[in-house]
Amino acid sequence: MSRKLKALVLPPAARLDMVCSTACRRLLEQECDPVWNETGADYTPEQLSPLLSDAELILTSWGSPLLTEELLREAPRLRYIAHAAGTLKRRVPDNVLESGRVRLFSAAPRIARSVGEYCLAALLHLLWRFPQMDAQVRSGLWKNGALGRELRDQTVGIVSASSTARAFIDLLQPFGVHIRVYDPFLSPAAAEQLGVVIVSLEDVMQCPIISVHAPSLPETKGLLTAELLRLIPDGAIFINSSRGAVLDEAALTAELATGRFVAALDVLQQEPPQPDHPLFGLDHVLLTPHIAGMTVEGCLSLMEEVLLDVLRAERGETTRYEIKAQAWAVMA
Amino acid sequence: MSRKLKALVLPPAARLDMVCSTACRRLLEQECDPVWNETGADYTPEQLSPLLSDAELILTSWGSPLLTEELLREAPRLRYIAHAAGTLKRRVPDNVLESGRVRLFSAAPRIARSVGEYCLAALLHLLWRFPQMDAQVRSGLWKNGALGRELRDQTVGIVSASSTARAFIDLLQPFGVHIRVYDPFLSPAAAEQLGVVIVSLEDVMQCPIISVHAPSLPETKGLLTAELLRLIPDGAIFINSSRGAVLDEAALTAELATGRFVAALDVLQQEPPQPDHPLFGLDHVLLTPHIAGMTVEGCLSLMEEVLLDVLRAERGETTRYEIKAQAWAVMA
Repeated sequence: MSRKLKALVLPPAARLDMVCSTACRRLLEQECDPVWNETGADYTPEQLSPLLSDAELILTSWGSPLLTEELLREAPRLRYIAHAAGTLKRRVPDNVLESGRVRLFSAAPRIARSVGEYCLAALLHLLWRFPQMDAQVRSGLWKNGALGRELRDQTVGIVSASSTARAFIDLLQPFGVHIRVYDPFLSPAAAEQLGVVIVSLEDVMQCPIISVHAPSLPETKGLLTAELLRLIPDGAIFINSSRGAVLDEAALTAELATGRFVAALDVLQQEPPQPDHPLFGLDHVLLTPHIAGMTVEGCLSLMEEVLLDVLRAERGETTRYEIKAQAWAVMA
Repeated sequence: MSRKLKALVLPPAARLDMVCSTACRRLLEQECDPVWNETGADYTPEQLSPLLSDAELILTSWGSPLLTEELLREAPRLRYIAHAAGTLKRRVPDNVLESGRVRLFSAAPRIARSVGEYCLAALLHLLWRFPQMDAQVRSGLWKNGALGRELRDQTVGIVSASSTARAFIDLLQPFGVHIRVYDPFLSPAAAEQLGVVIVSLEDVMQCPIISVHAPSLPETKGLLTAELLRLIPDGAIFINSSRGAVLDEAALTAELATGRFVAALDVLQQEPPQPDHPLFGLDHVLLTPHIAGMTVEGCLSLMEEVLLDVLRAERGETTRYEIKAQAWAVMA
């Protein structure tokens, strides 16, 4: 491969610093012919339009302009769109894969790994309650009976066997937990391979530990109804790292207000939330600002991961981050 | 086994509620002939002495009276001492195993499992800094750039391949971390089986994540000197779940006061600490009251674990919690 791939890098410097490591910049200079965004901001469609004629690869991330059919018509040589972020849905035309001209790459599987670590960290946070212990020690109380709880041998209920769920399940392996999954698309064979048991959504909601991984789709909007949320057992741990839209937030807040179980919520229905959100008054709820998939290391590796995969594609090798047509159709 | 083992249960009711589950009480009633401590407090040696003549099994825990040579002479039928807690050293005569009459059981391996979970929980706590994120969300800041850090692919240095270290290493497996261990007694073959690399203590202290598991022995007192603590890299995470005595606490406090790395300390040189302990002023240090080995589930299972093992011994089966003479000699 002597000819270098003409790469249009859409993120401006400030965003690039988050998703593109020094190694990735070097790789782009060595293996591609990159055009950097020096404007200091995300391109407007008007700024982007005249840059498209030569582009063979477009690298995008959060904040990049949507690649409409109109814009893509101005990129006749385009063969790859690689997104250094999560979902590409609604960022490219829904029929983009139909012509077979352009191949799509998304760093979503890399992001899922971060979410897996978030879920285990949030779960252990709620089991151990370190901030309370730490405050007690500093206030002069040493042993006062507050003990951590163990994860080993517990039962964990998972809503949807998505890629983030699988990353979480991976990290749970050495704990010897019993995993129950609700997922209408999970086959018995796939469940066996994952080491999980397929159950109903009602059964998942009755587990002592529940983690929600449902993709945000029209079909999953409000999936966890007030009725289902009422099933959460006393003393349970409830974690949502997927999307606020998949549950009835008012009903969850009402259940949490009783204090009968604890929760970690990385996502809310409205982000950022109103400053007087009723969850803000509940100390037994861990609130994080939709960062489960955005770790320091994870973010910095996003562009390199998809770029390396494009280079694999260019060499005719098997890809890891490519979105194939049949997956695209059912994607969130 | 029709004849029931005469069991002297030393912990009084309040302690028993912590270390003996309902299932364990039932097991004691079914499989043994138990004498419960109904005095409401730990026995004095004088109270214990007249109860010993029949005892074949003595069940002990934290707070139980030391079983001196003098007391043990009054227990001619004694065959098992089972400790529903950690170390038995200094609780029984050092030569107790020499006659071969009495067999010793300790729940230390069960406690190690809890410590393993503590170490991972503390590590993820320091990587994610959830309390800061949570406070930011509630104060109206949503995304403000504070991100979690990932454990995957990191390098973890371990001081001493003790049972708590092995429990921790077990939980680290799915993270694909690189583990470096300092342990003068770890053979290359054992290291390979553990999936770790043997390095010097200096090398461990230069890892970005360091977890201390050294047993408290005369040989390990002050093992981590000021000079070694100075090697801890900027941005590192330092965890001590072993004993306060294994390090120079004043030197560690001075290093931490610079703010150049963070720490989780479950143990201190003096416990409880003085109310004006200089560590109390450092927000980037997680302080917990020597509870790493004492989870709710762990504690409640301690007596059952050792009792089940005594019953295994009684049936001539392989034991899991028994302390053999050669191990006793090098034990903390």
